[in-house]
Amino acid sequence: MTTTAPKPTLLEALAEVLPAGQLITGEKTGTYLRDQSDSTAAGVPIAVALPVNTEQVAAVVAFAAAHRIPIVPQGARTGLAGGANAIEGSIVLSTTRLNKIVSVDAEDQTATVQAGVRTYALARAAAAVGLFYPPDPGSWKGSTVGGNVATNAGGMLCVKYGVTGNFVRQLTVVLADGSIVRTGQRTIKGVTGYDLTSLLVGSEGTLGIITEITVGLLPAPAPASGVSATFAGTEAALAAAALIVASNRRPSILEYLDGPSITAINAFDPESKLPAGAAALLLVQSDQAGQAHDDVEEYAAILRGEGATEVLVAHDPAHLDQLMTARRLLQPALQAARGSSLNEDITVPRSQLQALLTGLTEISRDLSIPIGTGGHLGDGNLHPMIGFDAGNPAEVEAAHEAFARVIRLAISLGGSASGEHGIGMLKQAHLDDELGPILRDLQRRVKKAFDPDSLLNPGKKL
Amino acid sequence: MTTTAPKPTLLEALAEVLPAGQLITGEKTGTYLRDQSDSTAAGVPIAVALPVNTEQVAAVVAFAAAHRIPIVPQGARTGLAGGANAIEGSIVLSTTRLNKIVSVDAEDQTATVQAGVRTYALARAAAAVGLFYPPDPGSWKGSTVGGNVATNAGGMLCVKYGVTGNFVRQLTVVLADGSIVRTGQRTIKGVTGYDLTSLLVGSEGTLGIITEITVGLLPAPAPASGVSATFAGTEAALAAAALIVASNRRPSILEYLDGPSITAINAFDPESKLPAGAAALLLVQSDQAGQAHDDVEEYAAILRGEGATEVLVAHDPAHLDQLMTARRLLQPALQAARGSSLNEDITVPRSQLQALLTGLTEISRDLSIPIGTGGHLGDGNLHPMIGFDAGNPAEVEAAHEAFARVIRLAISLGGSASGEHGIGMLKQAHLDDELGPILRDLQRRVKKAFDPDSLLNPGKKL
Repeated sequence: MTTTAPKPTLLEALAEVLPAGQLITGEKTGTYLRDQSDSTAAGVPIAVALPVNTEQVAAVVAFAAAHRIPIVPQGARTGLAGGANAIEGSIVLSTTRLNKIVSVDAEDQTATVQAGVRTYALARAAAAVGLFYPPDPGSWKGSTVGGNVATNAGGMLCVKYGVTGNFVRQLTVVLADGSIVRTGQRTIKGVTGYDLTSLLVGSEGTLGIITEITVGLLPAPAPASGVSATFAGTEAALAAAALIVASNRRPSILEYLDGPSITAINAFDPESKLPAGAAALLLVQSDQAGQAHDDVEEYAAILRGEGATEVLVAHDPAHLDQLMTARRLLQPALQAARGSSLNEDITVPRSQLQALLTGLTEISRDLSIPIGTGGHLGDGNLHPMIGFDAGNPAEVEAAHEAFARVIRLAISLGGSASGEHGIGMLKQAHLDDELGPILRDLQRRVKKAFDPDSLLNPGKKL
Repeated sequence: MTTTAPKPTLLEALAEVLPAGQLITGEKTGTYLRDQSDSTAAGVPIAVALPVNTEQVAAVVAFAAAHRIPIVPQGARTGLAGGANAIEGSIVLSTTRLNKIVSVDAEDQTATVQAGVRTYALARAAAAVGLFYPPDPGSWKGSTVGGNVATNAGGMLCVKYGVTGNFVRQLTVVLADGSIVRTGQRTIKGVTGYDLTSLLVGSEGTLGIITEITVGLLPAPAPASGVSATFAGTEAALAAAALIVASNRRPSILEYLDGPSITAINAFDPESKLPAGAAALLLVQSDQAGQAHDDVEEYAAILRGEGATEVLVAHDPAHLDQLMTARRLLQPALQAARGSSLNEDITVPRSQLQALLTGLTEISRDLSIPIGTGGHLGDGNLHPMIGFDAGNPAEVEAAHEAFARVIRLAISLGGSASGEHGIGMLKQAHLDDELGPILRDLQRRVKKAFDPDSLLNPGKKL
């Protein structure tokens, strides 16, 4: 790690903006350099700020604006696209201490949290009053609500309930000049002014620093039932999934794992005990009040009818939890299995899923590089993970070539480079393929309207 | 009507942009002056263009941009806030002939329509393949999908399914310079680039001209059951509604009518036969597969438990349809009852509904002006309608004073000036109360990023 040498006076001045103990400088900033993507670049920041409230965030941003220092907002660094990686000479604004649950309102079914509150803590706080915060990204026990909003994170339950952005009502945001605004409405509906809330959702810290979030909650769902089913081939699995999607028994989870994913998860955590040896595994859950049991029996019949080789129905919460917990290990398990990995997050229309899986097999074979795939089949959002040995330059090159080809494949099928992880630094090269020049220009003008000097997380997202 | 006198050469040049028969000039433009709000201003346009495809829209916009002529996009003119009213010297761009259903994809559960397709036509096209397009604004038999997107229209079913914007995946948009872009993704999820689709939803034609829309569809719901219940006072009605919202039996409709609304609807259409003589009426529906019957019996028990005086359960589609159809007459019935009216569209957190209703009674009494209120109780989005005699200047003044006080009341309760009708021209004076100056400035910069010369529907929304 090369250390930059900022003028001592600048750091001294910055230290005065915050109470003592809330600024990290020097070697200790090393902890805050990068997220969980292992192939993205990171620079050395001049400092890491640890504000505890919106006003402190505003003070740091105003300081940075006055001195033209880039700001990198950072949550729990569970991201997978480098969006929160430090930039050389920047101030990293960590939301670690913005960790207060401000309020949970049972009557209005809303909660307000500071940006650094863990997703799982929000979900538990909602559950404590009989309510439900559905978005459940794989990282939800560690990730922050602010990070989820900044990437518009998804999760397993999104097939029924929608992604993070569908639950965001109001955002407290520090703008590039340090001013504080609150966008959106606490109410369920509201069309006063442009929908800047939705624009900020998924903007990866490039339009403003989100410090506080009000989300809508739902009544707690009924106890869920679930079923897993293995298949000897992907065609039959996809046919069964299509029948389940077309039924009016809406699943709350509809997930897919391929053979390598199952093997990797069982190896990563032997407690997982996923049914092994199959080409494909589907996990389907219903949490419909008064219907979950029947729904899952119906799903099981569909799965058997399409040739599933092993169908396990779980009406028992412990068994169901075991199946779903294992699925959550997909990302770390495949990463561990391969040493290093490039993590895709592509989406396609559901009708193109077979073409996608066939194309993935071809890319893997052509480049002799392993690709394990799992994810949110019901949403058409899969996570092919490309494994490689970082010490082998030929493999590194092949992995990056595979990464690009997978994205081009998804786009050619009417899909997108990213469903829920964000663009960060990892997928920037592929933006033009998807957006085209006119839309890129328009996006840049929107960025400029928010951040004319390009100080907010520069080099990310766009 | 005063007629402007554009240079003949300008109109001749404009006429050459479109095929013959697609440009209206002179007196005949009178049909296209205004929407259904009867207190908003309208100017005389130089012409009304009737394009049939995106390319023709682009040609008209490019022409307008070259000659600095304002463009007013206009759907079926069913709006209630003056958003589509013609501006003096503008070109009105009517979407009337952009009326093609481009595709309905049963497997991917999407539909693509031109902006001028009627909402009801889209719903029927979806139903024809066993799918469901939920947004159902009161005007849905006449309104266009493009207009619904431009205002982010709601409706009765939105309490369960969400508003128009929740279903929009992709928009084809003509920008202010006449260039054509497609925003968003056909897929369910997608975070590539900023979410310009959500920004355009509800932007009332001020950021771009929406010409084509791809929406997501759901599997058709189960046959619905419903219940109506009358109450002698609003407190009991609100208490019952709160219990229904808190249950995990999610209603697909939860509507409210006050006494004057019931009387006006029954007078407007004697077929309506709503239970008369009560202070409040609730309409509750469930369309949950396998549960609708039980849900509604449970709702009925809750309603009786809270003191409902007359509870009518409808498991029979014809009876249910009669109840819900009558509710759809709220707006025209109150407008007819009063000669003229100012239509509110306020939202409040549900916990503030009683305070809102109490405040409405006070405003009505203070100003001696009748206010009838109904709407989407489950969303906290109500439509107080202020009746007045347009020939009586004192009443006109009192009505406008009441209009302003109702909005300030909603905002003071944590609510918003508009839930689903839009700002248009009607509510512009109240934007600063709700947004504040910093957010207003930011919104203006966003507008400028899209429309630097302010040619797209100037004087609306912002």
